[in-house]
Amino acid sequence: MADDASRQNDVQRLLQEIRETLARNRLVEGLVQRTHQPHQALVENIVHRQNLALLASRLDNLHAADIAHILEALPLDERLVVWDLVKSDRDGEVLLEVSDSVRESLIRVMDSDELVAAVGQLDTDELADLAPDLPDEVMQDVFSALPVEEREQLRFAMSYAEDSVGALMDFDLVSVRVDTTLEAVYRYLRRLKELPDHTDKLFVVDREGRFQGILPLKKLIVSDPSMVVSDLMPRDVVSFRPEDKARDAAHAFERYDLVSAPVIDEQNKLVGRVTIDAVVDFIRETSDTERLSQGGLREEEDIFAPVWSSVKNRGPWLAVNLVTAIIASRVIGLFEGTIEQLVALAALMPIVAGMGGNIGNQTITMIVRALATHGMNRADIRNLYFKEVKVAAINGVVWGGVLALVTVLMYGDWPLGGVMMLAVSLNFLVAALMGVTIPVLRNHFGRDPALGSSVLITAITDSGGFFIFLGLATLFLL
Amino acid sequence: MADDASRQNDVQRLLQEIRETLARNRLVEGLVQRTHQPHQALVENIVHRQNLALLASRLDNLHAADIAHILEALPLDERLVVWDLVKSDRDGEVLLEVSDSVRESLIRVMDSDELVAAVGQLDTDELADLAPDLPDEVMQDVFSALPVEEREQLRFAMSYAEDSVGALMDFDLVSVRVDTTLEAVYRYLRRLKELPDHTDKLFVVDREGRFQGILPLKKLIVSDPSMVVSDLMPRDVVSFRPEDKARDAAHAFERYDLVSAPVIDEQNKLVGRVTIDAVVDFIRETSDTERLSQGGLREEEDIFAPVWSSVKNRGPWLAVNLVTAIIASRVIGLFEGTIEQLVALAALMPIVAGMGGNIGNQTITMIVRALATHGMNRADIRNLYFKEVKVAAINGVVWGGVLALVTVLMYGDWPLGGVMMLAVSLNFLVAALMGVTIPVLRNHFGRDPALGSSVLITAITDSGGFFIFLGLATLFLL
Repeated sequence: MADDASRQNDVQRLLQEIRETLARNRLVEGLVQRTHQPHQALVENIVHRQNLALLASRLDNLHAADIAHILEALPLDERLVVWDLVKSDRDGEVLLEVSDSVRESLIRVMDSDELVAAVGQLDTDELADLAPDLPDEVMQDVFSALPVEEREQLRFAMSYAEDSVGALMDFDLVSVRVDTTLEAVYRYLRRLKELPDHTDKLFVVDREGRFQGILPLKKLIVSDPSMVVSDLMPRDVVSFRPEDKARDAAHAFERYDLVSAPVIDEQNKLVGRVTIDAVVDFIRETSDTERLSQGGLREEEDIFAPVWSSVKNRGPWLAVNLVTAIIASRVIGLFEGTIEQLVALAALMPIVAGMGGNIGNQTITMIVRALATHGMNRADIRNLYFKEVKVAAINGVVWGGVLALVTVLMYGDWPLGGVMMLAVSLNFLVAALMGVTIPVLRNHFGRDPALGSSVLITAITDSGGFFIFLGLATLFLL
Repeated sequence: MADDASRQNDVQRLLQEIRETLARNRLVEGLVQRTHQPHQALVENIVHRQNLALLASRLDNLHAADIAHILEALPLDERLVVWDLVKSDRDGEVLLEVSDSVRESLIRVMDSDELVAAVGQLDTDELADLAPDLPDEVMQDVFSALPVEEREQLRFAMSYAEDSVGALMDFDLVSVRVDTTLEAVYRYLRRLKELPDHTDKLFVVDREGRFQGILPLKKLIVSDPSMVVSDLMPRDVVSFRPEDKARDAAHAFERYDLVSAPVIDEQNKLVGRVTIDAVVDFIRETSDTERLSQGGLREEEDIFAPVWSSVKNRGPWLAVNLVTAIIASRVIGLFEGTIEQLVALAALMPIVAGMGGNIGNQTITMIVRALATHGMNRADIRNLYFKEVKVAAINGVVWGGVLALVTVLMYGDWPLGGVMMLAVSLNFLVAALMGVTIPVLRNHFGRDPALGSSVLITAITDSGGFFIFLGLATLFLL
């Protein structure tokens, strides 16, 4: 027994030892290849084999999530050595825990038989999670080895979209009949010998398997065993349908502080349950995906991935940026004559564009958040336009004023300062209007309001800023 | 009983009705003030009072989180009308559920007595969460009204930093002695009549209250009542110390799929527990804070907040951007002579800067993620530098090449195309090097590697890109 900090230290220490052992091993291999002292090398080799065996037994004592952590922290070749040390009956659970990109690297080195053996031990809902990463023939082998009931479950779990409750769901249900006594429930549970993880409630069904309600364990435990299940069922139960959005289910888990919740179909049949651990993983993955896409990465990147796959991962974003940058450049190109006459404009124009991009991104961030946490009706949206325009106007006067002063200090040119202030204010207004419009429109058409909004607003405030500033300069200063 | 989707629909429908009722109410008030038909207005007024009473009773049936949702979705004046309709004995739990900015707006309209009554009903750990938002005299009144034990708990909970386990912790412990039979445990639990939420395990202590282990409810239920607690305790238990980082605790909850975990002090005394609902809230808040700061907002913003508070919220970021933009502008200013001679440079330079910013942000996003999920040693960091430089070099050749071609197509100037390619490649290298260095250094000095990294890298790639491009042009093209 140890607290979490010392447990993490143990994992880190083991990671360090693995690295050192493998580094020594590489030295020995080098020795065997390069020197004429095969005997000594052989002895050392045996020692290192023993070390590896020791590492293997220590890995075996770790939680699958900790093994996954170690695999993720190691460069590819060392990762594969450690992967070999993991007992094959734990391969499945470890594959579930590692990140997508690391999972790919592990699956690539396993042959079909190993894969079938590894994933054959998993629950059907876990199998459904891994399925997209597995070769087709492996999935076919696994599928045909399953009992009929589990085959149905697997087909069911795989039939739902990744962002639906069906994909979060598992089938580890403990259900009891509505008309039994608690005494009978206890007898039934003791016969089961073990309850699934995250069982905080039993699911209550009628004779036909139709969902009737829930029986929280904590109620079961404090109640008199002679009572009947139906007496204890709370009136208010949160349940889901398999086609519900996973995002909404996650919000419900947060709002109502759930640990598990039943999933029922149109016929009111109990088909599965969602548990908080699946929800937490979903929340974490969603926020990771958002952060990556905000940073301009297509997907999560294994830091030890080959250079070429990194180049590909970052390509799409760079391509988009290339196009928007060229458009902005062409806008400037329209005003080359103006810049030739007043070269200070070239130095000042990025300020107008950059500050506008800032305002636009601030507005979008706020609106996306508001759309995500509570819907907005027409009146709200109208109010938001008014408010954002006011905020932009005030910011335009304040920061435009500061920039006008800076311009006058740098160039001693009052009209230029005036154009600066006007351009900053106008670009702020454009940024605010588009900052509301883009996410609201995307949301209206059922798209994720966050995705790509930032690229779009920055493209608009760049090109717009250059156009407004250089256009005003052409009008008033030449 | 209803599934989650129809429950959410109910909440949305109630929200809609509230809006309509309040809108009609305003009409009536207008009538009273403006017309000479006081009698008819009075009648309608009574009708609307009845409507409000109806709304109040429907609000009373909602979960506190749903009431919070409705309050957040309403503009300030309507929000306050609804807040008045909420029964005062639920004020405390609703205050806990609303967002920080909305909570402020609600607390502002409550007098001391109301506040003392509202928060007096909360648990000490909840009280500790609200404390920073409450006026001092309210906290003093509440504090002096608490029993001695709870006073100690409150002092304890408030003594820990916001990002520590101590701040996540609650005191709803059910502990049992290590040497009792399950039979006795059942008798004890039935006497309690109710178990705290998220009780998936009991905490086992010895005679002196020292923590000995845990007893999972699901083990208790399936085991023979004649067994003794100590026979059932799992060997492997995750526990925390109050001063542990909340972030690490959240990772442990995710890794080991926990629902609750004990918090113990240096003397091995059981002081509290952490539950998954607090962890989920923490995860959500952390990712929200990150997203807001990436978007350039200081803190969460109530969309109905007054214009002035929005201006203040967005000010710091704009100020930072103002400074970096002026620096970049001065860099361009250095080369005004060059631009005067070759005005195409003015149109091309934002491309170099923008694409560099992209590469830098991609690199930083990846490194921040890698640092967060698994630490990196020196060898890893060295490898990362090599890898990122290679990725940047390839991207430089690819995208620099494309841009060189675009330049030649636009201006028919081959040497200008060459300078473009060289500048893009060099700025990519700067971006990659700084993209690794900034988060690694911040992490090394114990700071959050993500915070502000994006502003810094963009400032560097802007100024750097302008300098490299215009500098090369001055060298080779004039």
